[in-house]
Amino acid sequence: MPWVNHQIVLASHADGLPRADNFVERTGEIQGCDAGHLVVRNHYLSVDPAQKGWMGTAQNYASARLGEPMRALAVGEVVESLAEGFREGDFVSGWFGWQEYAHVGPEAVQRILEPWCSPIRYALSVYGLNGLTAYIVLSDILLPAEGDTLLVSTAAGGVGSIVGQLASERGARVVGLTGSDDKVALCKSEYGYSAAINYKDADWLKQLAGACPDGIDKYFDMAGGWISDEVIALMNHFGIHAQVGTAAVASWDPVPQAPRRERVLLIKELTQKGFVIFNHQQRYAEAIAHLRDLLGEGKLNFREDIRDGLSAAPAALEELYQGLNRGKLLIRLVDETGKTTH
Amino acid sequence: MPWVNHQIVLASHADGLPRADNFVERTGEIQGCDAGHLVVRNHYLSVDPAQKGWMGTAQNYASARLGEPMRALAVGEVVESLAEGFREGDFVSGWFGWQEYAHVGPEAVQRILEPWCSPIRYALSVYGLNGLTAYIVLSDILLPAEGDTLLVSTAAGGVGSIVGQLASERGARVVGLTGSDDKVALCKSEYGYSAAINYKDADWLKQLAGACPDGIDKYFDMAGGWISDEVIALMNHFGIHAQVGTAAVASWDPVPQAPRRERVLLIKELTQKGFVIFNHQQRYAEAIAHLRDLLGEGKLNFREDIRDGLSAAPAALEELYQGLNRGKLLIRLVDETGKTTH
Repeated sequence: MPWVNHQIVLASHADGLPRADNFVERTGEIQGCDAGHLVVRNHYLSVDPAQKGWMGTAQNYASARLGEPMRALAVGEVVESLAEGFREGDFVSGWFGWQEYAHVGPEAVQRILEPWCSPIRYALSVYGLNGLTAYIVLSDILLPAEGDTLLVSTAAGGVGSIVGQLASERGARVVGLTGSDDKVALCKSEYGYSAAINYKDADWLKQLAGACPDGIDKYFDMAGGWISDEVIALMNHFGIHAQVGTAAVASWDPVPQAPRRERVLLIKELTQKGFVIFNHQQRYAEAIAHLRDLLGEGKLNFREDIRDGLSAAPAALEELYQGLNRGKLLIRLVDETGKTTH
Repeated sequence: MPWVNHQIVLASHADGLPRADNFVERTGEIQGCDAGHLVVRNHYLSVDPAQKGWMGTAQNYASARLGEPMRALAVGEVVESLAEGFREGDFVSGWFGWQEYAHVGPEAVQRILEPWCSPIRYALSVYGLNGLTAYIVLSDILLPAEGDTLLVSTAAGGVGSIVGQLASERGARVVGLTGSDDKVALCKSEYGYSAAINYKDADWLKQLAGACPDGIDKYFDMAGGWISDEVIALMNHFGIHAQVGTAAVASWDPVPQAPRRERVLLIKELTQKGFVIFNHQQRYAEAIAHLRDLLGEGKLNFREDIRDGLSAAPAALEELYQGLNRGKLLIRLVDETGKTTH
């Protein structure tokens, strides 16, 4: 059967911060389900910092295409399937884009959601990019141990809020950098941080040095840029620096200039390591099992910032980079009664 | 007994390339050996790329002091000992500086040379910084394996010449960057390189891409700077980059600007790791055993560039940064007959 399909389409690349006007709304139609394909009705769309990289023209690990629905993860229900292994009524997560319906091949699906994955939107947050990134970077790169000081940039975000709790559970002293005083308070009251600092304060670096009297052993870095140029000076010998995001760099086209790091890397024998979650699928099961246990025991605090209606997506993405969200940003397309939200 | 002691003293810091006129010659006298100390007559002085870092005012892991003999490794003979564990006639390696005699405590000694360490100057090269650095960086950081493409910058130098042979022995395809056509030839004929490129050629980067058709998996980097800014673009996903030196950066004071690397580090999930040999002493025994086996079997080519007389040291250091040496640079102070060289 045909489906009327509202979409948010990428209209122009953004090499700086994404703006709502990089997108246009469009109404299309899916005539029917092709052989080997399935049609998914999206229930929640994910709004993620990584989308900035996908929208630009600079080299990246993935790109969104002009004139197509914005590249995004989503969860939804299979409404028709001509693909082996999928049945109508299955809930799935995957690369379904910013649209009401996705007509895709099986390769677009990340997984069929297990019954315990409830509410299903958790597949986009705790059991999705956020939780997986937090767990895998800590387990495979940073290895926080008793007595370590671990710094997290964008500490109150969807990933950082989980990192704080997982790292303090392992005995590290966790310090966070975030962009407002209320997020500083959240980090300390809910997310396991021993200390948190607003990097917009004029004396943030002095505050950071004070909060890390023994230096910084491990750095979970989603900011990069001018923030990390300063942080590196506080890192200890044999420190480990995971580069998980680059939120503090407004644009990569052209590649901006920065103080050379080879010397400090060498004399401190630092390890710097990049990380893209999508190349670590063999680690998902262990990560999800751990996060599920913590949630089940009520030991994991997690906030969501849910906006209603497809049209809310572009502004939500713009606000993400202004730090205006509080918790994981999601767009809800279908309410509890099954109706489309507006 | 008193010893007349010719010395080469650091007269001025060099934040750019060292020049012979950063040094002055001085004649001092050692009145006698203090309790707990020993007097070493230096036979060979080491001339090393790391000395540039010690001469500057920029932050480093060690510094040479103005008005004192230039910080340097050396090998020599104990001519008097009031220190436990050392006897007259022992040959020792250590931090004895650019001078004929060193009056030092036991902490300045690296080790008493074993009888197999012959000629004794090998303690400054194959069995010293050069061989140890080559072996330990390959074994602990780069882990070259069958089928890997491993790039080495300053490929024909004291370290690079050994890296080429050790890495090709492990089955890697080894490619070198060096600064002259005759060094390119040496890399290929003697040092185990499958290909080598003169980075002074206008089209060196195109040559490099051609020599690495499958990209670069591992990078043994003693250059850094503008050379590595280009090399990183050729590195493969999950590539490993060991920062062992920064010869291509003329000065670190002030820290120069460079293209930001966070994005390429992230999207390629590279590992960058700094290395300072002096923090890895627990690995020396294994490294030396391996190098001794190779030398004993005649399977390790190694060149030395030996200059006679203390006064030759400053110019030798200057020439090192001009790439004018062929092999490990050493200053010989005592000839086979035991006479002081001039």
